[in-house]
Amino acid sequence: MTSEHESSPSDPSDEAVCKAELSTPAVGRLSLYYRELHRLIAAGEKSTNSRDLGQMVNVSPAVVRRDLSSVGSIGRRGVGYDVQLLAERIGAVLGSGVQWKAVLIGVGSLGNALLRYRGFERLGFSLAAAFDTDPAKYGREVGGTTVRPLDDLEAVLEKAKPELAILAVPSEQASEVAARVMAGGIQGILNFAPTTLRVPAGTAIINVDLASELQQLAFRIQNIRM
Amino acid sequence: MTSEHESSPSDPSDEAVCKAELSTPAVGRLSLYYRELHRLIAAGEKSTNSRDLGQMVNVSPAVVRRDLSSVGSIGRRGVGYDVQLLAERIGAVLGSGVQWKAVLIGVGSLGNALLRYRGFERLGFSLAAAFDTDPAKYGREVGGTTVRPLDDLEAVLEKAKPELAILAVPSEQASEVAARVMAGGIQGILNFAPTTLRVPAGTAIINVDLASELQQLAFRIQNIRM
Repeated sequence: MTSEHESSPSDPSDEAVCKAELSTPAVGRLSLYYRELHRLIAAGEKSTNSRDLGQMVNVSPAVVRRDLSSVGSIGRRGVGYDVQLLAERIGAVLGSGVQWKAVLIGVGSLGNALLRYRGFERLGFSLAAAFDTDPAKYGREVGGTTVRPLDDLEAVLEKAKPELAILAVPSEQASEVAARVMAGGIQGILNFAPTTLRVPAGTAIINVDLASELQQLAFRIQNIRM
Repeated sequence: MTSEHESSPSDPSDEAVCKAELSTPAVGRLSLYYRELHRLIAAGEKSTNSRDLGQMVNVSPAVVRRDLSSVGSIGRRGVGYDVQLLAERIGAVLGSGVQWKAVLIGVGSLGNALLRYRGFERLGFSLAAAFDTDPAKYGREVGGTTVRPLDDLEAVLEKAKPELAILAVPSEQASEVAARVMAGGIQGILNFAPTTLRVPAGTAIINVDLASELQQLAFRIQNIRM
């Protein structure tokens, strides 16, 4: 049984306003709803509601409703949300219809894990190339991507025109590599090096620090104990 | 030259109040200031200020001052913050004086990378054991930690009494493994499986979804383009 689904008028200027208003945590939650909706679709579910979605991603139904209304999706009382339509709507806002191309720099153990990680493709990301400075790794295929010499970086960026770069290099190399990918036209950097990269306006960056995540967890445990 | 440093009275009840008021993003930023302060200490620096710290972690000086005053550290105009004292103060709030013990479950490519990651030790985390269900991996040493059969989990939790578990297992095994570690006394879970784990009150959880980070990056690029 399919439920009805209301969305805001598809005037692009409206959508632009709504996007600009989304906070970083809200975008993170939308990304999680999107993942859970695809799980529901795969399981053959047709509809869901703010309570169930909230339980899936650990937030209250009120937060779910606010997030979804901010992208123009209003659930109907007693009917809920059509999972397919809602996934499409969130996907459009998050840019998931688009096929994004990424390169990865640094094929150490983390780079290896990222190249083997299959979650990226599911969301429309493809890895165009991987780079390292260790000649022993050149030509090796990891998770379907061939490792190339870092010296080839500029030529590959020029030819493949990827939008994103994933940095899994040691801290001391991160700024230099970031400068090179930006000079080559990269618009967004996902940085796993444990150093905060600063980029000029016009380039997007997300720094992921694994040790910092563990530190935040330890902080929460301390708070629970008190 | 050492600068003076003002901190709030060390009444423990005061500190408890201040901790409880810290938002998750604020804790994340504190963790980043902490990392940068240690970099400054290693470089022989004695003092810093909110402008420089803000530049290092991509936030405004006003946000830095608010975050640091929330942990009881007030910089002095024209003098700034003593890096050593500030690092100690933030470390105390984040629980970094404490030696935390963690176990890792799932020694696939990501688990491998996490075992080799040296950032955890620096912040006072030690990996007590790693577990997998693949007999070919039993006894193998990765990054100084020996891989054991998952069947040994309960016995190891009982004996080593770790506080934290890092889950790098496939999605479909995540809830079962989470239930087992919680039954074994684990208080906090860092979950890398691309599924949102729900845990009862009293257990802390942080879900890290690598694909979701890339999706947030793509969203930011779209916004920059508009």
